[in-house]
Amino acid sequence: MTEISFTQTVPEDDDRSRHVCDNCGFVLYENPKIVVGSVVRHEGQILLCRRAINPRKGFWTIPAGYLELNEAPEDGARREASEEANITLDIERLLAVYSVPRISQVQLIYRARLARPDYSPGPESLEVKLFSPDDIPYDELAFPSVHWALGHDAEAEGGAPPVPFKNPEGETGNMMPGGERLRTENM
Amino acid sequence: MTEISFTQTVPEDDDRSRHVCDNCGFVLYENPKIVVGSVVRHEGQILLCRRAINPRKGFWTIPAGYLELNEAPEDGARREASEEANITLDIERLLAVYSVPRISQVQLIYRARLARPDYSPGPESLEVKLFSPDDIPYDELAFPSVHWALGHDAEAEGGAPPVPFKNPEGETGNMMPGGERLRTENM
Repeated sequence: MTEISFTQTVPEDDDRSRHVCDNCGFVLYENPKIVVGSVVRHEGQILLCRRAINPRKGFWTIPAGYLELNEAPEDGARREASEEANITLDIERLLAVYSVPRISQVQLIYRARLARPDYSPGPESLEVKLFSPDDIPYDELAFPSVHWALGHDAEAEGGAPPVPFKNPEGETGNMMPGGERLRTENM
Repeated sequence: MTEISFTQTVPEDDDRSRHVCDNCGFVLYENPKIVVGSVVRHEGQILLCRRAINPRKGFWTIPAGYLELNEAPEDGARREASEEANITLDIERLLAVYSVPRISQVQLIYRARLARPDYSPGPESLEVKLFSPDDIPYDELAFPSVHWALGHDAEAEGGAPPVPFKNPEGETGNMMPGGERLRTENM
């Protein structure tokens, strides 16, 4: 059992308050987290997971989650897809880099295909399903960035150049398309 | 003064050991950090900063540093450029997404131009200088990813499509081009 004790203070040569260890002076920097995810296609359909956990339990999302220590982003996207939908991905390329500053997230979203046509819900999913583009449940998507990613993936499928998309102009990920204001957007 | 005490344990519904608060059960997730930086051009020259701090004090680098909480990546790249070289950037686009898993870093590197032709060293720089491409001090660059970024920026300048570059094949950022093995790559 490790006991650690921190004091909130501005370290020497810094300009922001940080948590500093009372024993050794170690500075615990808190920084934004990286979400890695993927828009997964299989024979023209798109794979979505219905969330078994909060926030936004019951809503549909793309396989995504926090990058772990010592993990490369594409490896993280593959791990999350495996954990949430029991799928194996062929990653094609980086589709988008989104930022949600309110909750200190940067999202790296990839375009991918199913390496094998098998899928099933992992512990954090109630259901995993392939949707034809016309059948995507837009009213039941979990987060603004899921809307963005599906729209951008459709643009990519339609021949947009392979340049990563960014937040839609003026959007910071706080609002659902219907106008609902979000308080959390953890994946 | 805030006192916090953590125990290292695997939280319920998790599969990795985390720091958990002894008082309230808060889980302190440690995740990779995001470095934001930019290759900055001005009239065909490239701006580099000579590091005033360790690691790699005295070596040349591009303006870059850790993204802060509640900060969008391009804003962070602009802030770091301002802090390290007292410059104002016009960011053109995302040049590269690099990953250095050993030290849990993801780097978002932008192409940028000087909005004004003024520059001077900030507290973390000994010197700031514009280099013609032929005069870049390749033997005195701070990190592998600085080599990559300068090479990729040259490819972009030469007409490569505006798709972000990635780590060179097989490279994980542990080794300088001359073969020196690095133990740290903090920016």
